[in-house]
Amino acid sequence: MTPSTPRGTRVSHIGIAVEALAESLPFFRDVLGLTEVPLDDSDGASIVGLSAGEPLVELLQADDPASPIARFVAKRGPGIHHICFSVDDLDATLDRCRKAGVQLLDEKPRIGAEGKRIAFLHPKSTGGVLVELSDH
Amino acid sequence: MTPSTPRGTRVSHIGIAVEALAESLPFFRDVLGLTEVPLDDSDGASIVGLSAGEPLVELLQADDPASPIARFVAKRGPGIHHICFSVDDLDATLDRCRKAGVQLLDEKPRIGAEGKRIAFLHPKSTGGVLVELSDH
Repeated sequence: MTPSTPRGTRVSHIGIAVEALAESLPFFRDVLGLTEVPLDDSDGASIVGLSAGEPLVELLQADDPASPIARFVAKRGPGIHHICFSVDDLDATLDRCRKAGVQLLDEKPRIGAEGKRIAFLHPKSTGGVLVELSDH
Repeated sequence: MTPSTPRGTRVSHIGIAVEALAESLPFFRDVLGLTEVPLDDSDGASIVGLSAGEPLVELLQADDPASPIARFVAKRGPGIHHICFSVDDLDATLDRCRKAGVQLLDEKPRIGAEGKRIAFLHPKSTGGVLVELSDH
């Protein structure tokens, strides 16, 4: 498959906000049997990736009390934080969002934890789901 | 691949609680470009499946005010509700959960929406994440 082959929209990862990686990792790694994948920290959070078929499960622990993950945990408690879809054409998808009246948290794509271009959508526009979009 | 080939633990689907399928479906289908997959209703909810690579995204709309989805939306608002992992050996995984002190919502597997054996774990035992386990 060449890089330009359309793949369609895929679930790239599910981000889970945790209070402490050391407490949450054993369940996902040792009980469920997922495999750790090294990932860089991002957005004031330490991240552990876990391979679960095609998408990753990402455990996100806040390192900075002003980070989005810290604010989420303070407000709602730990739990599933966001879902990331990778798409064939990020700019065209963001254009479709704008035309559909979906509010963007990132008006222009920025570089995310995995070095890909990403953009978040506002959960008020997506039925309460924090959606991240990324290049494949 | 024979049915008995170990596949490891995979993300099978992500369940999203919605207030109204008719309002939420256009974003996931028309804006994100996911493909609808027919699914049976289950647990007092109408379900639309959306193919997103290997895992499905499932939109869950309560049909019964006493259903788990209705209670979730009343308490927390719409949004990501649960993540389902399919596993090689459901009974062995549930045994590992018990030994690790993870509280089960279903002590014994039951038949879920897709006709597979499933069991839910208590989110208090999994860092706030409602985890469903199923056979592949």
